[in-house]
Amino acid sequence: MNTICAISTAYGTGGIAIIRVSGEASIALVDTLFKGRVSLADTPANTVRYGQIVRSGEVLDEVLCSVFRAPHSFTGEDTVEIACHGSVYIQQTLLQWLIDAGCKAAEPGEFTRRAFLNGKMDLTQAEAVADLIAAQSKAEKDLALSQLRGSVSTELANLRERLLHFTSLIELELDFADHEELEFADRTELKDLASEIETKLAALMTSFRTGNAIRNGIPVAIIGAPNVGKSTLLNALLGEQRAIVSDIQGTTRDTVEDTLILDGILFRLIDTAGLRETNDTIENMGIERSRKAAQKAQIIIYLKEPNPSPSLKGRELEGIHGTIIEVVNKCDLIPGVSLQGETNGSRLLHISAKNNDIEPLKQELVRIAKTSMDTSAVMLSNARHYEAVTRAHEAIERVQEGLNEDLSGELLSMDLNDCLNALGEVTGQITNSEVLANIFSKFCIGK
Amino acid sequence: MNTICAISTAYGTGGIAIIRVSGEASIALVDTLFKGRVSLADTPANTVRYGQIVRSGEVLDEVLCSVFRAPHSFTGEDTVEIACHGSVYIQQTLLQWLIDAGCKAAEPGEFTRRAFLNGKMDLTQAEAVADLIAAQSKAEKDLALSQLRGSVSTELANLRERLLHFTSLIELELDFADHEELEFADRTELKDLASEIETKLAALMTSFRTGNAIRNGIPVAIIGAPNVGKSTLLNALLGEQRAIVSDIQGTTRDTVEDTLILDGILFRLIDTAGLRETNDTIENMGIERSRKAAQKAQIIIYLKEPNPSPSLKGRELEGIHGTIIEVVNKCDLIPGVSLQGETNGSRLLHISAKNNDIEPLKQELVRIAKTSMDTSAVMLSNARHYEAVTRAHEAIERVQEGLNEDLSGELLSMDLNDCLNALGEVTGQITNSEVLANIFSKFCIGK
Repeated sequence: MNTICAISTAYGTGGIAIIRVSGEASIALVDTLFKGRVSLADTPANTVRYGQIVRSGEVLDEVLCSVFRAPHSFTGEDTVEIACHGSVYIQQTLLQWLIDAGCKAAEPGEFTRRAFLNGKMDLTQAEAVADLIAAQSKAEKDLALSQLRGSVSTELANLRERLLHFTSLIELELDFADHEELEFADRTELKDLASEIETKLAALMTSFRTGNAIRNGIPVAIIGAPNVGKSTLLNALLGEQRAIVSDIQGTTRDTVEDTLILDGILFRLIDTAGLRETNDTIENMGIERSRKAAQKAQIIIYLKEPNPSPSLKGRELEGIHGTIIEVVNKCDLIPGVSLQGETNGSRLLHISAKNNDIEPLKQELVRIAKTSMDTSAVMLSNARHYEAVTRAHEAIERVQEGLNEDLSGELLSMDLNDCLNALGEVTGQITNSEVLANIFSKFCIGK
Repeated sequence: MNTICAISTAYGTGGIAIIRVSGEASIALVDTLFKGRVSLADTPANTVRYGQIVRSGEVLDEVLCSVFRAPHSFTGEDTVEIACHGSVYIQQTLLQWLIDAGCKAAEPGEFTRRAFLNGKMDLTQAEAVADLIAAQSKAEKDLALSQLRGSVSTELANLRERLLHFTSLIELELDFADHEELEFADRTELKDLASEIETKLAALMTSFRTGNAIRNGIPVAIIGAPNVGKSTLLNALLGEQRAIVSDIQGTTRDTVEDTLILDGILFRLIDTAGLRETNDTIENMGIERSRKAAQKAQIIIYLKEPNPSPSLKGRELEGIHGTIIEVVNKCDLIPGVSLQGETNGSRLLHISAKNNDIEPLKQELVRIAKTSMDTSAVMLSNARHYEAVTRAHEAIERVQEGLNEDLSGELLSMDLNDCLNALGEVTGQITNSEVLANIFSKFCIGK
């Protein structure tokens, strides 16, 4: 494979920048520009060498080069990481000189793609690299890191290997089709295994809801009658003037979204139009959107006035699956109300969004989120994995049906292979170039 | 000195990011978070070690740590450079964990400041680090790199040392003040040295004009009558629609500035209001600015219509010191005009800004700039150096006068010391904390 190079640090001027070069010829190619006490070829692996980048007598910069040798590098190939001064001019000129010397400019994710192709990691781990770089919160980081360290792959590879064993036996039976009495694969054991796999895949599918929420933020809808202070609450939670606030009923029409990190968990807050009967067409479209947002949300903050307000019911509750927190706002208006969290064990919280007395609500959001997140379990967070696991689950259900109906080995084998393929797609044991291209195109250049 | 840490790569999300930790305790402090096959304390200098960043059981990231040991590091102290995944969340959390572990967040330029204080570089070299990071063009990079490699320091330190020798001898004479006949310092030799120093300092002062132009861009003013196409030329040179162009005389009122790099040289282009008599107050203010811009410019492009136009003269030429290029624009309107550079040996160029036929002008700009830049000579580019060298020059002129007037050793010694101090300020042999604070505050954090 040819040798690739890219700027691996963030774009722009910094104290230093790293240019990464990987491939069979990487050390030799960088050596054509590097002048140090000793050449990089004579530098031991995992060693940093000081020197200059020189071409035709022109010194470009004083640099540090780290040398890594195959297979003990990120890509599994010989690699040089050049730390230069962080001027954009120097970074780009160095990249140009490397390309002139025979390197190819790396495509997005090409270093990680090579790590995958060289067997340094499977596909879920490669995808986790991109997730880790995009991580904005502790929960996201934990999820990506767990996947990078092989949690998803180990879980699936183990199931797949055992299933493969049975599939081979059944296929062996087919080779002896004229001896119908032969049954290498114990059907009872296979039933047990299929049941175990079905349970685990179903659990993984369920975990996707949480995993996805961790990656994209747990959706939290703020709903309630007009003028109960929904936008004021959004602004108080975000600590900024995100939504327009006024005394006029129906100020918020579009749903306003923003993200908030509490205790390392990313929440996606959705402020909605006040629920009321109105003839204003645009406002009614807004109210319809509020309903939709509430239906999709994992947590619903139902905001109320201090005077006795009805709980959510009837039409408002329609299609809502998430956890509802009932919250009384404007408690600054009633003297003597305690803001210290829940009253008499119910979920009824008292806050004052205007005075920024919202601590009990923040704590409740974190508590509910943590309850739904069992971070010790393996979690799916990637839509591609979810789709493939869903297909594997469908196939294993067909296997179970087939076993119950004493289906022929030939038909069983088809469903078993469907399941094996779907599982293999997740970890990348089975791939096609289109899927790979799609995955790595989402990476940044230089990783 | 305490141990400092900072993110040293550019701000934002990247493939990887570097966090630098420097100080006596750096290796021990990073070791409290680092879990690898071997501790960093047991890692040889200039070696890269793979491991994880862990605190209270929570894994933050998988990282590479490069270990450097005093005095063989940038700062001259023990240093660890941690390469982590380039998520902003991970970078900032790692920085926080290091601070929690006992590191201090580094101030701007604090790593380079320590390199200076630990004698790894003098002050001109430290300043060159910032210049190198800010470099936008080859000429700027060459200038900063030459300064980083000690060109200015070597030039001045040599002169200063020889002057110091004479000053010591003269001060020795003062100790034997009762033996008036004693003269340790040969006055003829001192005269020769003073003359040599005066010449060299004068040359350095002259070089500042070029050095400064390389750093900030060579100022090029585009002047001419209204509607000759000055703004069209600016846009053609920049390759974008920077200035508003119209057929209406007086479209440009404010001077419009932008920078352009040609053949590695930075030019600062200044488009000006057309020179004409007008009663429009705002336009007249613009015309006054055009005159000022032309006076300050190092190159003046005087743009004309193809029909015989007058050369610059009288009032227009007032105060102009730069090189004037006379350029006939709109040559697309006259058939048969060659655009191939100069005609009959004069500086008269023919272009068509509208058709982007401006190559001869670009070549002429580069030619003039290179003529004025003798890049092999030591050049001052820093206003602080220029100011100190100017003071040193004044002092050595007083020494020369004093020698001519047979001044007493006591008075000579004062002027000699003024010169020595001024030279010492440039290289940082003599410093005060205010000057240092001012220099390093202009650095980015992490360098």
